[in-house]
Amino acid sequence: MEQIRIFCPATVANISCGFDVLGLCLDTIGDEMIIRKTSRKGIHISKISGQSLPTDPHKNVAGVAAMAMLKNLNTDNGFEIEIQKNIKAGSGIGSSAASAAGAVYGINKLMGSPFGTSEMVAFAMEGEQLASGALHADNVAPALFGGFTLVRSYDPLDIVKIHCPGELAVAVIHPQIEVKTSDARAVLKKNIPLKSAIRQWGNLGGLISGLYTEDYELISRSLHDEIVEPHRSVLIPAFKELKEAAALNGALGSGISGSGPSVFALCKGEKTARKVADAMKKVYSKTGVAHELHISKINPEGIKILDR
Amino acid sequence: MEQIRIFCPATVANISCGFDVLGLCLDTIGDEMIIRKTSRKGIHISKISGQSLPTDPHKNVAGVAAMAMLKNLNTDNGFEIEIQKNIKAGSGIGSSAASAAGAVYGINKLMGSPFGTSEMVAFAMEGEQLASGALHADNVAPALFGGFTLVRSYDPLDIVKIHCPGELAVAVIHPQIEVKTSDARAVLKKNIPLKSAIRQWGNLGGLISGLYTEDYELISRSLHDEIVEPHRSVLIPAFKELKEAAALNGALGSGISGSGPSVFALCKGEKTARKVADAMKKVYSKTGVAHELHISKINPEGIKILDR
Repeated sequence: MEQIRIFCPATVANISCGFDVLGLCLDTIGDEMIIRKTSRKGIHISKISGQSLPTDPHKNVAGVAAMAMLKNLNTDNGFEIEIQKNIKAGSGIGSSAASAAGAVYGINKLMGSPFGTSEMVAFAMEGEQLASGALHADNVAPALFGGFTLVRSYDPLDIVKIHCPGELAVAVIHPQIEVKTSDARAVLKKNIPLKSAIRQWGNLGGLISGLYTEDYELISRSLHDEIVEPHRSVLIPAFKELKEAAALNGALGSGISGSGPSVFALCKGEKTARKVADAMKKVYSKTGVAHELHISKINPEGIKILDR
Repeated sequence: MEQIRIFCPATVANISCGFDVLGLCLDTIGDEMIIRKTSRKGIHISKISGQSLPTDPHKNVAGVAAMAMLKNLNTDNGFEIEIQKNIKAGSGIGSSAASAAGAVYGINKLMGSPFGTSEMVAFAMEGEQLASGALHADNVAPALFGGFTLVRSYDPLDIVKIHCPGELAVAVIHPQIEVKTSDARAVLKKNIPLKSAIRQWGNLGGLISGLYTEDYELISRSLHDEIVEPHRSVLIPAFKELKEAAALNGALGSGISGSGPSVFALCKGEKTARKVADAMKKVYSKTGVAHELHISKINPEGIKILDR
């Protein structure tokens, strides 16, 4: 195999009570990437369409992730990367993660899969570091594992794939404003009340339990975030109205996707997700803020091979 | 049915990363209670053996819990309670919870089970409030539900029973020193670093996932507590040595039971739990601190009826 074409999905990180540890994988929105094995050594990004992004591999998340993997491969070959970006940068649904995860997934496949999924996550995180300044895995993990993932620990890296009920679907609204990750980080408190933390981990326990037992009511009761959402939501236009519209139209819960500005609503069934997306659209039609909507089932497998 | 005799099990609350939310039920240590329906109205405690505790129902956790339930029952009868206390008060393995849970369980059975398990937890919590000054459920919930329980929320009360792998067993060492709950509370910080909280809920997610998937390695990797244990463990003699002995002898993890002074070790299999208990005993033979040991499988059903 000398070339592989893959679908690199968007992802939702945090998921209310799962700040910095949970993520889920979407199915209907993602980038396309072509990775080619070349006799020319090193990593080369030959083409990026859809968005204006640097092709210098040292300045591109896919390039940095690919180079991190290449350093650990014993090969005389190099790799050429083409990216069709469909996930908007800065949307909060894992645009950089899709590129970083795609690059390592593609190279790993072309090399006969020498690395396991968790090892791929570690390489992809180096790409993520270029994008956000932090080694975080909550988007690259669901992109590579699919479904729902938990980052139990960073040191050592320990990713757990959580069972995901088949009917879960997601509605996402992406307000086309810029929320800088640095701003989203700056509004957070360094210290939090122990009492709030206890409520948060009670909810996280409920959410994970609900996912394993496919108890949609429990999932719904657990989707709260009193640590991060109150601070970050002020950066998102009409956040409260979006949440109310989601709840009124049957969503299990809703919150900020990653560090925003996208807002997700978790739903039982795609039909409900469509209804919730329509209601969110209605809220935004009043604000005048340009926006995009996505409706998706949870993607259980992550990155998909389109052809070889 | 006019009388019921029941076994009211000891319980372990907190369980490392599950501070204030997780609890588990033991099988080999517990009180015995006899509850009788009487024509005399109200709650009467006729006999307490094994320990010196007040028989005035207003000053006894079983009495307070029973009265809380009685207020919500439409009956002309009253109830008489006899308690054989085997769980030492102040041991940190749910002595007061066993009495409170037993009282409401017994009365509920004698009345034809008008209340569900979560409602019984709410009544039993009123007894717990007398003992500790706080309405907490992390011992009464596992006593009444059995197995592993999560208190997802107190407002509204929401208890989740978590799947428990069949081979899980517990070794408990009870150093016979007094650790006042007020002291154990006082050493806690009101505010905690967000970073520590994230690691804690990552571990809680891992533990719950490991319980559902019966992944003992994941359970083991998740049994950490960096929020409470560092502060409370100073109140427990040779705590570090107990943890080391437990780890060296194959325990999945260990920590403070409730607010102490008991220390638990979670193990795969009773054989390992016995080995760990022996190793803990050896540690304590050097300290000269009097102690008791308990070895138990997890009790999946909670309170048991001995006869009617």
